Amino acid sequence: MLKTETLPVATTDFSINAVENTPANHPLHVFFHPKTVAIIGASERATSPGEALTSNLFARTSSGPDVYAVNPVRKTIFDRPAYARIGDVPAKVDLAIIVTPAVTVPEIISECVAAGVRGAIVISAGFRESGAEGKALEHEIIERIRGTQLRVIGPNCIGVMNPVVALNATFARKAALPGSVAFISQSGALCTAILDWSLSEVLGFSVFASVGSMLDVGWGDLIDYLGTDPNTESIVIYMESIGDASKFLEAAREVATRKPIIVIKAGRTEAAAKAAASHTGTMTGSDAVLDAAFRRAGVLRIDWIGDLFHIAESLAKQPRPKGRRLAIVTNAGGPGVLAADALMTGGGELAQLSSETMEALESILPAHWSHGNPIDILADATEATFERAIELALNDKGVDGVLAITAPLVAARPVTMAKNIAKYAKLGKPLIASFMGGNDVSDADGIMSRGGIPTFAFPDDAARVFNYMWKFGESLNTLEHEADDESANGGALLKSAKNRKVSPIIEKVKSEGRTLLTEVESKLLLAEYGIPTVQTLSATTSDEAVAAAKQLGFPVVVKLLSKTVTHKSDLGGVKLNLQNEDDVRRAYHEIRNAAIARGRLFDCDGVSVQKMVRFDGGYELIVGSSVDSQFGPVILLGAGGVFAEVMKDTVLELPPLTPTLSRRMMEQMRIWQALKGTRGNKPVDAAALETFLVKFSQLIVDQPWIAELDINPLLASPDGCIALDARVLLHPATMSEDELPRPAMFVSTKR
Amino acid sequence: MLKTETLPVATTDFSINAVENTPANHPLHVFFHPKTVAIIGASERATSPGEALTSNLFARTSSGPDVYAVNPVRKTIFDRPAYARIGDVPAKVDLAIIVTPAVTVPEIISECVAAGVRGAIVISAGFRESGAEGKALEHEIIERIRGTQLRVIGPNCIGVMNPVVALNATFARKAALPGSVAFISQSGALCTAILDWSLSEVLGFSVFASVGSMLDVGWGDLIDYLGTDPNTESIVIYMESIGDASKFLEAAREVATRKPIIVIKAGRTEAAAKAAASHTGTMTGSDAVLDAAFRRAGVLRIDWIGDLFHIAESLAKQPRPKGRRLAIVTNAGGPGVLAADALMTGGGELAQLSSETMEALESILPAHWSHGNPIDILADATEATFERAIELALNDKGVDGVLAITAPLVAARPVTMAKNIAKYAKLGKPLIASFMGGNDVSDADGIMSRGGIPTFAFPDDAARVFNYMWKFGESLNTLEHEADDESANGGALLKSAKNRKVSPIIEKVKSEGRTLLTEVESKLLLAEYGIPTVQTLSATTSDEAVAAAKQLGFPVVVKLLSKTVTHKSDLGGVKLNLQNEDDVRRAYHEIRNAAIARGRLFDCDGVSVQKMVRFDGGYELIVGSSVDSQFGPVILLGAGGVFAEVMKDTVLELPPLTPTLSRRMMEQMRIWQALKGTRGNKPVDAAALETFLVKFSQLIVDQPWIAELDINPLLASPDGCIALDARVLLHPATMSEDELPRPAMFVSTKR
Repeated sequence: MLKTETLPVATTDFSINAVENTPANHPLHVFFHPKTVAIIGASERATSPGEALTSNLFARTSSGPDVYAVNPVRKTIFDRPAYARIGDVPAKVDLAIIVTPAVTVPEIISECVAAGVRGAIVISAGFRESGAEGKALEHEIIERIRGTQLRVIGPNCIGVMNPVVALNATFARKAALPGSVAFISQSGALCTAILDWSLSEVLGFSVFASVGSMLDVGWGDLIDYLGTDPNTESIVIYMESIGDASKFLEAAREVATRKPIIVIKAGRTEAAAKAAASHTGTMTGSDAVLDAAFRRAGVLRIDWIGDLFHIAESLAKQPRPKGRRLAIVTNAGGPGVLAADALMTGGGELAQLSSETMEALESILPAHWSHGNPIDILADATEATFERAIELALNDKGVDGVLAITAPLVAARPVTMAKNIAKYAKLGKPLIASFMGGNDVSDADGIMSRGGIPTFAFPDDAARVFNYMWKFGESLNTLEHEADDESANGGALLKSAKNRKVSPIIEKVKSEGRTLLTEVESKLLLAEYGIPTVQTLSATTSDEAVAAAKQLGFPVVVKLLSKTVTHKSDLGGVKLNLQNEDDVRRAYHEIRNAAIARGRLFDCDGVSVQKMVRFDGGYELIVGSSVDSQFGPVILLGAGGVFAEVMKDTVLELPPLTPTLSRRMMEQMRIWQALKGTRGNKPVDAAALETFLVKFSQLIVDQPWIAELDINPLLASPDGCIALDARVLLHPATMSEDELPRPAMFVSTKR
Repeated sequence: MLKTETLPVATTDFSINAVENTPANHPLHVFFHPKTVAIIGASERATSPGEALTSNLFARTSSGPDVYAVNPVRKTIFDRPAYARIGDVPAKVDLAIIVTPAVTVPEIISECVAAGVRGAIVISAGFRESGAEGKALEHEIIERIRGTQLRVIGPNCIGVMNPVVALNATFARKAALPGSVAFISQSGALCTAILDWSLSEVLGFSVFASVGSMLDVGWGDLIDYLGTDPNTESIVIYMESIGDASKFLEAAREVATRKPIIVIKAGRTEAAAKAAASHTGTMTGSDAVLDAAFRRAGVLRIDWIGDLFHIAESLAKQPRPKGRRLAIVTNAGGPGVLAADALMTGGGELAQLSSETMEALESILPAHWSHGNPIDILADATEATFERAIELALNDKGVDGVLAITAPLVAARPVTMAKNIAKYAKLGKPLIASFMGGNDVSDADGIMSRGGIPTFAFPDDAARVFNYMWKFGESLNTLEHEADDESANGGALLKSAKNRKVSPIIEKVKSEGRTLLTEVESKLLLAEYGIPTVQTLSATTSDEAVAAAKQLGFPVVVKLLSKTVTHKSDLGGVKLNLQNEDDVRRAYHEIRNAAIARGRLFDCDGVSVQKMVRFDGGYELIVGSSVDSQFGPVILLGAGGVFAEVMKDTVLELPPLTPTLSRRMMEQMRIWQALKGTRGNKPVDAAALETFLVKFSQLIVDQPWIAELDINPLLASPDGCIALDARVLLHPATMSEDELPRPAMFVSTKR
């Protein structure tokens, strides 16, 4: 539980200057800074959304926009003139807000285009969420705005607020407080709940927007705009569907390093995702892929609504920690230990204090202090001791952040302590605090909060948020490393997507009207990209199989070779560890006879023969690629063998993979602990695995015809990495080149 | 984040009758219902604990105890007479509160004994936390109260409060509010912080106690007392060390089924545990063992301070759910999905609605409702529809609990909805609510809270607490099953600890002055308890080895046999898969020569010969026993092989194991998913594994000389379970029979 005192209050300079800094040329500027607004469907009917909108906008301040009511059957609304259509309004309208029945909206949109309107918010419901008819209406709107300058938010939303300029273009009865957090939500219901809650918690917003079905304006546009908005310090998103994945990734990657982006996404679990899909009428992809995309974009995903705003605020107020090492300064032992538990359970570390810091602490602290981190300065420490201990901890090079904890019933006064430490809020390292208690410490909390120190009711919550802070920092570091990797490569990775080469193997398989490559073909394709595979020969007679085995050297493996069978072992089509000619000959006939016995001889194109590779000191891994409905190709790396299914030790990432990203994938597998070398076992060749993954990614990026590519197993050993089996499935030839799913990381750069 | 409205307020009947129901004959009754109190070390000196205590107790109400000041140098304290020693007080004192320097305390304790005092609270610090001298003082106090009727709380604590009778025997400046939660804490600092916080959150307590170093009164005593206290509905504990493990287990197991016991334990992580140890001066055992003990006792362990009281309240207000299936009724889609995510992430399930429920819902809900669970009744639903949907969900046999969610901006009024559903609070199934919003819903929250429905600010928090509720229910179910198992066995499991038989193998090894059993001896010991082992013969010549191999049948395994070497394979002492006489002979000489080469022939007592067992369709597991410093013998079950180390897939449990507990251990391993049978693989023989574990537990309970017993590997296959290797280490013979660690589950029954 976090303290209400930590919540952001309006600290921005709301002068005209601040407002004028907003880039007026951004296409979304008009939604948040309109000079003239028309309400189409304005109404006086109590409890109707039209009435609420009209009342909210008519109640504008002197600095607010001019507002016009549009209603085809009324002459006046609330004693002001009403106009039949937007074309009749005697001014150039910037922003139209549409609250008319769904069927009327397409025509009104056309009228808005004709009237030169730049932004329209469609409040009305009755679109995709209500079935095929509504979906058709959406398509019609999309057609009518295509190629025009009109951008549309909604439909099925409550509208937008810009509390900084007191604009309330929603039908919510209350207005949000001004502040520095931008909140954009795909659920209108959640908007109103958060709004009401924010008023009792005194939480302010720079933008408060409900985006509805996102038929035009989506996350990418909004994030891009908020990146330019001087009043926005952090961006909080409630998401039900990703919409345009490429646009989201592009905008988020650009903005995230400057302004934290915090997302809560409904539908993490499968059953919940199904519920979400039925609720919004939108398609959802794999949640694990979404996780990978968020990490890739530097977006912090949060699981609990209650965490959203406090974490946004902590990230906005305090610098990114350079690492995960926290020093805890406390005047109470138990709470310090609870904070240490929370820190380490979440992957953080207790900083190891330097000998200089230890000496300095010894000189100011009583004999029974904890002599380590947590730094327990004991209950009778003075304000000066508390301050000095925090200063020493902050100045220790081995410390990435400091958590200050106090309990009541001590010599020192909370308010004095708060004043003393507030001056350390801007030292370039995070300083967070938990002054435990209720009314006794609320003044102290206020002082720290205003000074830029996030405060928490309980120390374990503070440590948990520190874990979010360094994780966020790490994901931004990866973003930056990735850029370094890329520039070191001369942009080669990104270029490869444009100047892709055609694979002769894939061309051949396509020309034969097939979509499944044989094992031999699959390995040849890998070889085109320099990916090591075990040499594999094909044979259509037992004599050829024996010849192949002799050429490769015994022992060998003989497998069914097929252009149609994907899981060979189910058909008895894999024979391991064959020692001599006789073994090979017998294996050949057994495979053939098994196919005949099942009436599937026509599936048998002979056999493949490969050298039997020993697993000594090596581990079976799986590397694969498949296509996500939203993000295109996704690369999977995981542990293989018996435990693959049970332990589900897999990591996903979006191509293209840089060396840094490949390494990060490897490190995220739990089995990495074993691959690094355990007692008695040498580590596997990590550099080879890294290169393997980068080449695999190049192949996937280059060859969009690949629908699925599994390397199972990949043998990772101290002597290198090698693909022992491979299976490639192409997209159906009926797809056009343009329809092929491309990596979401690239698409928008092509537009 | 949970709503402040959910917090418990005083709902107990505080009439004299309620108080008189407290069992006055409980030894701890005197601490919470004293008739006469003496403050030894009473003082007028501002800011001293003695002064605070004196002020608090002198300010008693008319129904409070008579209070006497004891001070050897003052004639009066705050204008009341002060007595030099407790013997001078002109009344029979029930409770003495001691705030004098540590060195004076042992003598004062003796005076209290002489004066017939039944309870003493030692506030003073300066005992074990300050080193050897302080520890000696504690021992002296223990000696002085041995065999007397005086019980001691502390030292180094802030005292105790009984807010129900307005007793404040602490030096905290404020008094807690009365309520139904008992809070007992090992950290005085945390007490004062929670106290101050509870006042701003309007949270009440039946008991509020700081227990300090627990030299006498510990968790077991307090839980036992609180089990009898009619004002206590739930027990919340902040723990730094377990103290007397057996007493804790016994009391908790007795009380937990009637009153929820919620614990937060500092030192979950190793580094934090170290900090806790340095802080309290107490030893801490393995946290994983503690987890097992908590589960075994039906105690719910919580990780976050902020959760403690809300969960205590939810468990006390609402019945235990029969299962994990939640129905969510909501008028807002997104929040419903977030709740479903939180539910399923924590292991809960979305209830599958019956066809009757679905039909009834269809008849009252608009066409576009969600047609499933979460039951999204849509934003324009009326109060009556909301109520009816909740009633239908509660009456569905497939539903174990209902979460009601509303968002503002809907047709229905929160207060009416709250009143409507409050009547379903006592239907025997948990009903919890999240009416999202701030001031708009606070009245509704108050109505529900008073009606016994826990309310939460956000729906995901509500779902999370439901997960705690069913987990708590499951652990109590296991407690009850265990009792059934036990009575079905005619108390055999518990009896076995008393009438234990002496093992001839162990006697023999002890008589030879050894502590390590050979592999053959270890397997004979297992066989004494009917635990299946692979037949293993010993041989001291190569001829004997060959004869043994022939007797067993090829292929065989030959291993070094040693009374001193524990890890045979490190010495090249394991030869697998020997096919014939020559192989066996060669293996014998290789093992012997390896020992000679390392100059360790004296460690070689020949070889063991056993049949080579195939692993086809089986899994390697590990079963072991070792001794925890606090809980005695602990049984471990885990996955074996390469992944054991990396995946750390192990489960701990305290002996004795019943069939139910054995099954629960098996199901908690992640590899259980594979053991149950995967595609193409038959399930392993679960009944055999269950029996194996029960027998293993009997062996451990029966034979207290065993310090460590590892069966690694245990082969679990579809055809049964068998120990392939075993290693037994005994306690040193220098220990006396009485010093041997015994299972914590038994010790107190022996006293």
